[in-house]
Amino acid sequence: MAQTEPAEDPGELPYRRHGIPALGFENYWYPLLLAREVGRRPKAARLLGRDIVLFRDAGKLFALEDRCPHRGVKLSLGACEYRNSGTISCPYHGWVFDGASGRLVAALMDGPDSPITRKVGVRSYPVREHAGMIWLWPGEMAPTALEDDVPEWVGDQNRFFSIPMYTDYRCNWRALVDNWGQDHHAQYVHRSSPELLFQPVLPFALTLEPTVLPGNKGIAFKRSGGMTSAEFPGLGRFPNNEWWRVMKPTGRGNVRGFQESKAHRVYGIRNQSEVWLPGLVVVGRLSGEYALIQWAVPIDAGTTRCFNINNFRRLGRWREMLDRVHYWLWRGWAHDRIFSDQDKVLVEALVPGPERLSRSDVGVIYWRKFAGANARRPDRPAEAARDVA
Amino acid sequence: MAQTEPAEDPGELPYRRHGIPALGFENYWYPLLLAREVGRRPKAARLLGRDIVLFRDAGKLFALEDRCPHRGVKLSLGACEYRNSGTISCPYHGWVFDGASGRLVAALMDGPDSPITRKVGVRSYPVREHAGMIWLWPGEMAPTALEDDVPEWVGDQNRFFSIPMYTDYRCNWRALVDNWGQDHHAQYVHRSSPELLFQPVLPFALTLEPTVLPGNKGIAFKRSGGMTSAEFPGLGRFPNNEWWRVMKPTGRGNVRGFQESKAHRVYGIRNQSEVWLPGLVVVGRLSGEYALIQWAVPIDAGTTRCFNINNFRRLGRWREMLDRVHYWLWRGWAHDRIFSDQDKVLVEALVPGPERLSRSDVGVIYWRKFAGANARRPDRPAEAARDVA
Amino acid sequence: MAQTEPAEDPGELPYRRHGIPALGFENYWYPLLLAREVGRRPKAARLLGRDIVLFRDAGKLFALEDRCPHRGVKLSLGACEYRNSGTISCPYHGWVFDGASGRLVAALMDGPDSPITRKVGVRSYPVREHAGMIWLWPGEMAPTALEDDVPEWVGDQNRFFSIPMYTDYRCNWRALVDNWGQDHHAQYVHRSSPELLFQPVLPFALTLEPTVLPGNKGIAFKRSGGMTSAEFPGLGRFPNNEWWRVMKPTGRGNVRGFQESKAHRVYGIRNQSEVWLPGLVVVGRLSGEYALIQWAVPIDAGTTRCFNINNFRRLGRWREMLDRVHYWLWRGWAHDRIFSDQDKVLVEALVPGPERLSRSDVGVIYWRKFAGANARRPDRPAEAARDVA
Repeated sequence: MAQTEPAEDPGELPYRRHGIPALGFENYWYPLLLAREVGRRPKAARLLGRDIVLFRDAGKLFALEDRCPHRGVKLSLGACEYRNSGTISCPYHGWVFDGASGRLVAALMDGPDSPITRKVGVRSYPVREHAGMIWLWPGEMAPTALEDDVPEWVGDQNRFFSIPMYTDYRCNWRALVDNWGQDHHAQYVHRSSPELLFQPVLPFALTLEPTVLPGNKGIAFKRSGGMTSAEFPGLGRFPNNEWWRVMKPTGRGNVRGFQESKAHRVYGIRNQSEVWLPGLVVVGRLSGEYALIQWAVPIDAGTTRCFNINNFRRLGRWREMLDRVHYWLWRGWAHDRIFSDQDKVLVEALVPGPERLSRSDVGVIYWRKFAGANARRPDRPAEAARDVA
Repeated sequence: MAQTEPAEDPGELPYRRHGIPALGFENYWYPLLLAREVGRRPKAARLLGRDIVLFRDAGKLFALEDRCPHRGVKLSLGACEYRNSGTISCPYHGWVFDGASGRLVAALMDGPDSPITRKVGVRSYPVREHAGMIWLWPGEMAPTALEDDVPEWVGDQNRFFSIPMYTDYRCNWRALVDNWGQDHHAQYVHRSSPELLFQPVLPFALTLEPTVLPGNKGIAFKRSGGMTSAEFPGLGRFPNNEWWRVMKPTGRGNVRGFQESKAHRVYGIRNQSEVWLPGLVVVGRLSGEYALIQWAVPIDAGTTRCFNINNFRRLGRWREMLDRVHYWLWRGWAHDRIFSDQDKVLVEALVPGPERLSRSDVGVIYWRKFAGANARRPDRPAEAARDVA
Repeated sequence: MAQTEPAEDPGELPYRRHGIPALGFENYWYPLLLAREVGRRPKAARLLGRDIVLFRDAGKLFALEDRCPHRGVKLSLGACEYRNSGTISCPYHGWVFDGASGRLVAALMDGPDSPITRKVGVRSYPVREHAGMIWLWPGEMAPTALEDDVPEWVGDQNRFFSIPMYTDYRCNWRALVDNWGQDHHAQYVHRSSPELLFQPVLPFALTLEPTVLPGNKGIAFKRSGGMTSAEFPGLGRFPNNEWWRVMKPTGRGNVRGFQESKAHRVYGIRNQSEVWLPGLVVVGRLSGEYALIQWAVPIDAGTTRCFNINNFRRLGRWREMLDRVHYWLWRGWAHDRIFSDQDKVLVEALVPGPERLSRSDVGVIYWRKFAGANARRPDRPAEAARDVA
């Protein structure tokens, strides 16, 4: 059941002028579930406000609108009754729908000669399994090739393998992407995160110079200036009371080291962080061990599924096992739980309404302009760079 | 607090044209509670969106609007303070209302000479105890005689005795009555119900010819054609994988046996199932053991009380004991719990909205037309048959 | 997030004509929390529909609007990061606000030279700790002196000491104050309260003659007539079945004894009960042991914080200890729990809507007229008595 955008909602103010919809940009692939969550038994899900039923049969994956047009019952309570037919049956009167096309192939209780067969159908969604996730295209446009459309570290599973997980946040997806847009929250929110304990101090008050990525897929920023500590009149020093900062490098690495980092040289990550359409962030680690992708998946206007996709280079079976153990013992906990939950608390405590943006919000402002002007739409399918200045 | 009908609700579309209200037809008797649930202590209930307080005193039963007109407190929190006076006292300032008329007979805190006494009142509802149930008439019209207005198997307790029970469903009452209107769901939904395990296979894709019952009380269908199994192109046979069907007769009984059945000969049930106004179904069993009535009682727009009333012929004390034990050990569990709950899951999973009805929905279509055209209303009290073709 | 008053709500009918707002009168001091509930760690609260964060630093108490103007996060999730600066820092990007003025004193992540510093701010509320409670002034007018504005028994802590407690009720504040306005509910609702077991019988059907208190602070009533028992035609005697009434004096004390009572002579309480603006009741005990204040604090349109403030004369350390033990063992339980909860049940069971007031509602009617005509407002700050006849 799609929720409409309340035009008068004060929380819409910062987004309406840029045309960033509350339910997300439709014509993109989104990760929706982990691959292991969908089997023969139909699975109900929601994406961009649409109720969807997913199921597998005959080695294929299907996604249909989750409401039978006959009398309105949810198909997800039904079953894949005819093995290898790629169909799902409504639990109420046995209307059987083809998973690929959504067409009604039989109305069991109406008999084999039912005149309604093939006359009606439900919407069918392009759906793919890839890299351990179920991907879905909720829009009306013809879908692009999934592997080409998503970042290569997750798209090219010959060279990389991915470890995905997700958590549902009680917030609108835009709050979460804003959070990723170089808005200087990391230096403050995550300063005592275990993951950053032995990493360089993150500098703040940076000067950001925006760049549009090739193919207009997203944006990045050239960083300059900034400081890792400062004296504030009437208050004192920031940061304060942080004895553990003796364990950290001074921040040099952060400011100038990226071009020499493994992330850049080995993984081909061009920037320390990039924000891509429709709403994801690609984070390059200085250490270059892996590329992290965080994806804000709009479930409905008040719920966002935050996917953390950790992508590792394929370097043989032993190295993969090591990477998986390391993820399981340290990275999954330190980043995908602790670090991400620090963001979760804040975006869930955000009361939508008027904003007062500042110098350090250049990233957020630029992202919103870029996204509104460049998101794929039926009337704007091409991906030539657009001026967002 | 009566809920208004949201005119713009897409779930209203299939009903608005026929004039079937979300809160039910008002001028009928409805079973509301089990008799044992109401005693001297006031009991709060809701029916057709109205909040009602019920209580007994001096061997009589009373039902009043559950809000004191003085300052608005619920009378159901009060008490029957003066035994044998047939009154209820508001817990806040002791306004005492006559259970029969609803008139204010005293305002205790205002003294015996209070000028407001007998000047105000609350609405009083016609209410009866019958067959182990509390029956209430929520409408504005003068009530009919209860025994004449309800089906004789529950109305005539000299010849029959009733075992009632109820369950509350989270759905609108109309979805539940549609479910009973020969809509061919039973053959599909209940095919593996324990109650039907040794009964004839129910045929589907029947041709239904509607009849209006005498006195315009409801409708029934002459059934013909149909099949108990069929091959569906591209899918296979329906039903499939049902080894237990070897235990069942082939369905002959269902199709032509009703005229010879005990249900018809002994209980006088004219048809295998009839749907009556204001929203109930009378089911005749081929075995003729008893007549089952299921009644969809509108509580509010989103809640329906489903009464299952099992009615048995009075054949002496020993036979009654046997029938009660049989109900307690088998029928109550197999039908009123398992079988009915299969319906509950579906009507609660129904997302109201546009429908696409088919050939096998003749029963639903005819019921809606009949009910809208024939329900008792102040401007249409007589019960001459109306053309609904 | 302030809630708007729904103009069409039938529950508004009895109040709209008098101009008594659903969210309370703004320009008054209100008790909001117990003093011990606020420390250095920011504390979220709500008052008159406003979300507010409270904190202490450098021995001072501060109250600010609980939403950072930058990106909307609740300041109550932040911290008082710079000890002795009297500031609170937003948890998201380190915007630091002065507790006293609400001005932005630093935007940490934007650096010490941030151009936005001192350009923005949040609303700051006048706040005081007094008599073990946190007091807040939610209005736009300049606050009065707290000690002069509240009843002297709580205002003058040199002569009195206070024991406060509170309970949150699920009702609008107006229902609770109406409950206190000499509406004759006490004689009925509390007649079997343990606190009144050995006290005089409360007479009912009193004649009430209203008086406006000096300085127009509230109202009181001269009581006359009334009865402690009466015969009601067709019902019987009220009260009935109350064997424990043999333990009580007959009510003489109540009717004529107040001028000679300790409450009047020692505590200076002019009347047995007075209802003050913005919505509190001062109860004088005949025994004169203490003065009880009950305060209806509007949290939002559907929640009211009921403060019970018990005030005792300072008569030395030993007597204070005795009074506290007596409160702890008896009064706190018998009144602030049992007696008050009898009211709580009723005001929470009140269904707002049209009313039918009677002779004994003189107190409620007079209170509403008085309050609407006399409540402090920007266009009516002076406190000359207004005719409310």
